[in-house]
Amino acid sequence: MDLTAFTNTIETELRALEIPQNPSGLYDPIRYFLQIGGKRVRPILTLLAAQLFGDPKKAMNQAIAIELFHNFTLIHDDIMDNAPLRRGMDTVHEKWNLNTAILSGDVLLIEAYKKIIEGSGPELEAILKLFNTTAIEVCEGQQMDMDFETRIDVSAAEYIEMIRLKTSVLLGCALEIGALVGGASKADADHLYQFGVHVGVAFQIKDDILDLYADPEKFGKQVGGDVIANKKTILHLTAVTNSSREQLNVLKNLSEEKDAQLKIERTKTLYDHLKVREMCEEMLHDHMGKAMFHLEEVQVDDHFKKPLRDLAIYLVNRDK
Amino acid sequence: MDLTAFTNTIETELRALEIPQNPSGLYDPIRYFLQIGGKRVRPILTLLAAQLFGDPKKAMNQAIAIELFHNFTLIHDDIMDNAPLRRGMDTVHEKWNLNTAILSGDVLLIEAYKKIIEGSGPELEAILKLFNTTAIEVCEGQQMDMDFETRIDVSAAEYIEMIRLKTSVLLGCALEIGALVGGASKADADHLYQFGVHVGVAFQIKDDILDLYADPEKFGKQVGGDVIANKKTILHLTAVTNSSREQLNVLKNLSEEKDAQLKIERTKTLYDHLKVREMCEEMLHDHMGKAMFHLEEVQVDDHFKKPLRDLAIYLVNRDK
Repeated sequence: MDLTAFTNTIETELRALEIPQNPSGLYDPIRYFLQIGGKRVRPILTLLAAQLFGDPKKAMNQAIAIELFHNFTLIHDDIMDNAPLRRGMDTVHEKWNLNTAILSGDVLLIEAYKKIIEGSGPELEAILKLFNTTAIEVCEGQQMDMDFETRIDVSAAEYIEMIRLKTSVLLGCALEIGALVGGASKADADHLYQFGVHVGVAFQIKDDILDLYADPEKFGKQVGGDVIANKKTILHLTAVTNSSREQLNVLKNLSEEKDAQLKIERTKTLYDHLKVREMCEEMLHDHMGKAMFHLEEVQVDDHFKKPLRDLAIYLVNRDK
Repeated sequence: MDLTAFTNTIETELRALEIPQNPSGLYDPIRYFLQIGGKRVRPILTLLAAQLFGDPKKAMNQAIAIELFHNFTLIHDDIMDNAPLRRGMDTVHEKWNLNTAILSGDVLLIEAYKKIIEGSGPELEAILKLFNTTAIEVCEGQQMDMDFETRIDVSAAEYIEMIRLKTSVLLGCALEIGALVGGASKADADHLYQFGVHVGVAFQIKDDILDLYADPEKFGKQVGGDVIANKKTILHLTAVTNSSREQLNVLKNLSEEKDAQLKIERTKTLYDHLKVREMCEEMLHDHMGKAMFHLEEVQVDDHFKKPLRDLAIYLVNRDK
């Protein structure tokens, strides 16, 4: 099955979910949010991992569970980030209200647990332990992300740890669960987990790099948005780590610069001088290298791994 | 083991929970909230149910899981109800902030799932299915409760269904899980579930009755608080169901009465006339009767059931 077929299958499964009608104040928001889309990367990873060892559809319930969990985190994160829009549509707390967003998020998390045990076999306990650990880590990552907003001493290493927890472990978890349901050995399942985590970290580094260095024609949103908002991205933290006292002063003054274009240009000039982009791309390639190493180690015929390799390369080589 | 011993064991287990130090913004609120206490009725029910069939401590992890879940619902409900205090102490969103209360509640829910699978045996899947169903029902009950605030056509039957979902099924679940871990037959586990649900409904009806008819010397809070706040209690809904058009008008006018003492007195007069208290006490006894029937049906020696019977009677005969 190719990626489009997988995406379509996931969409069909999500639409076929038996979401009750009542109380509608609880379930309408869930239906709405699941239908506003997304790339469905996580459930596709689960299916691709299962496919390495047999029929991918064996892991369909678990794939859907991972997507439900992901959507739970989005609904609650949107509240915490005060975000009005998600994928161009109103967020749940914006379209309904705070209480609705809290409670429908809670229900999505429980629904994820319902799905993950559906049709599971002897691997149930291992799957649940991994899922629980991952879910806790995702929340810890979200807390670290919020803590970073008010901290001035965040290191690049702490930032990488934050994105590892907030977003990357879920990719690893999606893959490992697919592998376990597919009947993989513990070693293969673990390599796929590591593959996912490193791809996830590389993906987030790419996200930060694109935000400043994307081709404006292709990017689809304002280039330099993170700089304007003084976000502590990996670019910024790498710059801070490598700055002299004088350069730190330049960065501090730039953070207060009101002229957006000037702010972006001067930040770029400093970053160029410090070779920030090169350093971040090196980190990215380091994580991609580790990801590919772990994929190599999985004991299945190499051509079966092509979709996973292609998806990883696509996620990291994208220009938007 | 007697009730005090059970309560102490639960407190000790809760204090011994390995809650991480960092990120402290996430875990400090959890530690705080678990230590402000509560009657620990739910985990005690789990232990008592397990004790009917063997060593109660076998179900300790599941008992703690139920209590963690309960505390998750309290933290999120407190946000939704805009409650500043819980058990006389600041609520989490009040002591910290909204985001902290959302995220630490989420983590408590996941921690409940971690605990429930710890040391579990072949009954794991049955336990998880029951726990998932119950967790969803509790959220549905909370949604119905919020919906009722703005609805004017709530029936007494709908209200009973709301309290069944919001609070009673968790008592049933606590008991059934204890029974399953203890090695009960499906039939015995099911009877204990029904026992818990009916005790829970009776408990909530008692709550509503006490609010208006408690002895002020013993009650510890203002008698008639629900009447003053125009709450749709079972007393109010039973009055509405049994009122003539004229009496409905009296009720409507009373809802706008500013003099609290007068409002309470006149409401009582109408309720007395309609025999509201007697009807509600009949409902309560009906549920207690059903609860006791299901407890009778459990196939263990009668004297083993004494602590459960005593606890149920205590919950429903209390005067505060």
